[in-house]
Amino acid sequence: MKDADSILIYDTTLRDGTQGEGISFSAEDKILVAEKLDSFGIDYIEGGWPGSNPRDMVFFDLAKKKTFKHAKITAFGSTRRANLKAEDDPQLATLLEAETPVVTIFGKTWLLHVTEVLRTTPEENLAMIEDSVRFLKEAGREVIYDAEHFFDGFKDNPEYALKTLKAAAKGGADWVVLCDTNGGSQVTWLQGVVKQAVEEVSPVPVGMHCHNDCGIGVALSLAGVEAGARMVQGTQNGYGERVGNANLTTVMPSLCFKLGYHFAAEQNLEKLSRLAHSIDKLANLVPDSKAPYIGRSAFAHKGGVHANAAQKVSRSYEHIEPELVGNRQRILLSDMAGGSSVAMKAGELGIEVDPKSSEMRSFIKRLKEREARGYEYENADASFQVLLSRHFHGTTDNFKLVSYRTISEVVRDNHENISEAVVKIRVEGEEDIKITVAESTGPVGALDHAMRLAFGAHFPELRNVQLIDYKVRILQTGLGTDSVVQVLMLSGDGEKTWWTCGANPNIIEASWQALRDSYRYKLLER
Amino acid sequence: MKDADSILIYDTTLRDGTQGEGISFSAEDKILVAEKLDSFGIDYIEGGWPGSNPRDMVFFDLAKKKTFKHAKITAFGSTRRANLKAEDDPQLATLLEAETPVVTIFGKTWLLHVTEVLRTTPEENLAMIEDSVRFLKEAGREVIYDAEHFFDGFKDNPEYALKTLKAAAKGGADWVVLCDTNGGSQVTWLQGVVKQAVEEVSPVPVGMHCHNDCGIGVALSLAGVEAGARMVQGTQNGYGERVGNANLTTVMPSLCFKLGYHFAAEQNLEKLSRLAHSIDKLANLVPDSKAPYIGRSAFAHKGGVHANAAQKVSRSYEHIEPELVGNRQRILLSDMAGGSSVAMKAGELGIEVDPKSSEMRSFIKRLKEREARGYEYENADASFQVLLSRHFHGTTDNFKLVSYRTISEVVRDNHENISEAVVKIRVEGEEDIKITVAESTGPVGALDHAMRLAFGAHFPELRNVQLIDYKVRILQTGLGTDSVVQVLMLSGDGEKTWWTCGANPNIIEASWQALRDSYRYKLLER
Repeated sequence: MKDADSILIYDTTLRDGTQGEGISFSAEDKILVAEKLDSFGIDYIEGGWPGSNPRDMVFFDLAKKKTFKHAKITAFGSTRRANLKAEDDPQLATLLEAETPVVTIFGKTWLLHVTEVLRTTPEENLAMIEDSVRFLKEAGREVIYDAEHFFDGFKDNPEYALKTLKAAAKGGADWVVLCDTNGGSQVTWLQGVVKQAVEEVSPVPVGMHCHNDCGIGVALSLAGVEAGARMVQGTQNGYGERVGNANLTTVMPSLCFKLGYHFAAEQNLEKLSRLAHSIDKLANLVPDSKAPYIGRSAFAHKGGVHANAAQKVSRSYEHIEPELVGNRQRILLSDMAGGSSVAMKAGELGIEVDPKSSEMRSFIKRLKEREARGYEYENADASFQVLLSRHFHGTTDNFKLVSYRTISEVVRDNHENISEAVVKIRVEGEEDIKITVAESTGPVGALDHAMRLAFGAHFPELRNVQLIDYKVRILQTGLGTDSVVQVLMLSGDGEKTWWTCGANPNIIEASWQALRDSYRYKLLER
Repeated sequence: MKDADSILIYDTTLRDGTQGEGISFSAEDKILVAEKLDSFGIDYIEGGWPGSNPRDMVFFDLAKKKTFKHAKITAFGSTRRANLKAEDDPQLATLLEAETPVVTIFGKTWLLHVTEVLRTTPEENLAMIEDSVRFLKEAGREVIYDAEHFFDGFKDNPEYALKTLKAAAKGGADWVVLCDTNGGSQVTWLQGVVKQAVEEVSPVPVGMHCHNDCGIGVALSLAGVEAGARMVQGTQNGYGERVGNANLTTVMPSLCFKLGYHFAAEQNLEKLSRLAHSIDKLANLVPDSKAPYIGRSAFAHKGGVHANAAQKVSRSYEHIEPELVGNRQRILLSDMAGGSSVAMKAGELGIEVDPKSSEMRSFIKRLKEREARGYEYENADASFQVLLSRHFHGTTDNFKLVSYRTISEVVRDNHENISEAVVKIRVEGEEDIKITVAESTGPVGALDHAMRLAFGAHFPELRNVQLIDYKVRILQTGLGTDSVVQVLMLSGDGEKTWWTCGANPNIIEASWQALRDSYRYKLLER
């Protein structure tokens, strides 16, 4: 076995994680996620339940052809059916067909489930556990036994719950994992139960599988480790059924920086934020800005006192150095912000301004007016930089809008829709107004294409600029279609990305503003 | 004092909560929040820091005129400045001017802050705490002393940290509150420290103020209560600086249902989801679907096995009854869904269908095709119901689009923008095509107005239908302005609300689809 303070990290993002609302990965995406987890140093990667759906079967077929440098891939399934030999159970057969070095099976701990869901006897359930584990061990697999509803079962009947673990141990399980399947357990009580389970099944090591239904999935996992568990199961970004599984992007840094345990991935923690965000991207989710350690807001400071102190002595208001998990300190603008926060923020963007100048006062006034109209500079650094630069450096536009018109239509007897934009702009140094027209699948795209035509050869650096993401929200809800629409737009040039904003009751105008700021920002490089 | 298992709930949504990124309340909104918290049975409501900004001063002026039926309003501030008499300190004076029954002041525990931030001596800091508390007590206030950075200070110098608490007790503090200001503490260690502090300051009762930086803000608060603390400070929905404060919408149900403590608001927990969502609405935030207990996903089940079992024996996969916190069970659609999930979902919407029929197979095929094109039925029940009704009941449209055209423009030398829509539709039972034109501030509004004109007297029930919320996201990022745009639209008729969806590379077309489904849904009532 390992050292007393060594922990194994077991990732079930690809199985339990996909039970979360709105989480869906293609088999190819699953392979990409597995490769990222492997590079990061995760010890076990649960790829799916081969018997449950065709997509997971495709994943295991693809995984067979890959070489993972550190992680062991595991296939998930259940114990054999009641009153059937393990060797005759089709579901156990599919687990072997997945050809993974490790197989994880779950079995029942809670008598409620044994009698009401499986509709079998307590004795047959113990036999199902022991037989299934032995069958998989004899086929040469490392076997992890997940004791489903372990804590609910223990509360109901501690003796029987421990018997199920011993049945798995007797069958030869390499690990028994205590699952708080419904997520209702509390820390102090759970810790006592884990201690007892660890003693009872020794020398078989114990793992934890917790959920976040009481908002304490991470605390339960860590409490289990402190009580002697040596494996933590969880998901990246806390994906998972209902409110999610124990969040490994929180568990890992706390194990390392707070409790001093060791695990293979600890050497890569400074890539943690990037890992978490890249998995969100594959899951098509916007990263949670309030995620501990890795969220955009995790080291963000608002209000003069804290922001000032945090810049001076960062540990005065930060529990770890943000860089240890690949994050960074941010100073926020807010309508509580005074000159010093704006000056700090400007400094962060490379613009030096005097926090006490009258120019600063007029800038803050302007900022607050614009914020009151719906512009959101807190999340649109590029628009903020454009505003700063225009105010303090007197930067003027390299182009000026004269007018635009967008038309979006579905024409009669032809169900296709098309958008067209006419743009009239003045480009600096040119006498005539440029008038251009372009089509696209939508009005914002049409405006964008027409703009590019108008810029022509004048601004070659804009050629590679592309819209990457686009978010729209209504600011005052309840006003019907006349509400103010706020647009946030992410653009990129292949090297870096930047956010701009727009706000107007008209979604086209708000989008146009964000688009214009994106070009203005890129042209600041001149 | 209270019974041994009685806890006081101290809400700082309006002060510490507003330090969160993107959280901002007007003084009037703050009053609305305070009224909601009071009705709910919250014991203390920290309204703001009167000395720090004019808005908070307005709040306290408004609060003076209100009668709160249960809650005590508290004003927040700091101890006196170094080397100044308490009675000469302008900041302490503003705290009294707020005229609240309770004043909460924070002081320094951690010598790093005493020397580096306050730049004073350890002895003067103790005097600042004792003097300030005594001054406020002599003015007739209930005084709560918040020991800022208590746990970091204790780690650094336990003896000095405890001395600061005793200074507050000596000054006459009614409560001392242990703050984990930077959010870096861990459960087991913190619990031991709280026990020690409770003994040292007895009989003065102790409170907890925790943050979520390690994802365990709730667990720390509960651990403190188990160690003898009798007050919990936190925020609704976990608003607050960085990743937020301890989330009271999680702490409260866990205290009640999991640990058996008592507090005034426990009798209102079945209104908890509504309270939390109404505060999000005032903060202009979309409720977190993954919030424990109260999130939309908290009792949502995906995948055949769990969904089936949860419907049969709900406690088999639910840690409490959702209704206890005003939530409900939901069955999710997903591409893992088979006939039985769709049938359950349909049943939930009042439509009975046979899960094994060939009609069901063709429906699931259609559903999956549409999901693959970007429609999202998981969050758009009304669109799903329209689809179901058309497929299983052969419902046809009461109106049919012939064509539409929207124009959005900024005309030359006039910086206002305007949108116009022309709609041509056939209304059932009418010979001629209706051709209508309307203007609005945006293209979706213009389409909506033109539609209503066309419907005219035919569908009077559509008159009260209004767009309430509107969300847009890009599905495949990285494709520039040609990406598929997904629109989710919330409509209401004054009595109920419903979500519909649309998906198309053209944002106007996607919006039109969501708008059309909203009308189709309302007309299903016929």
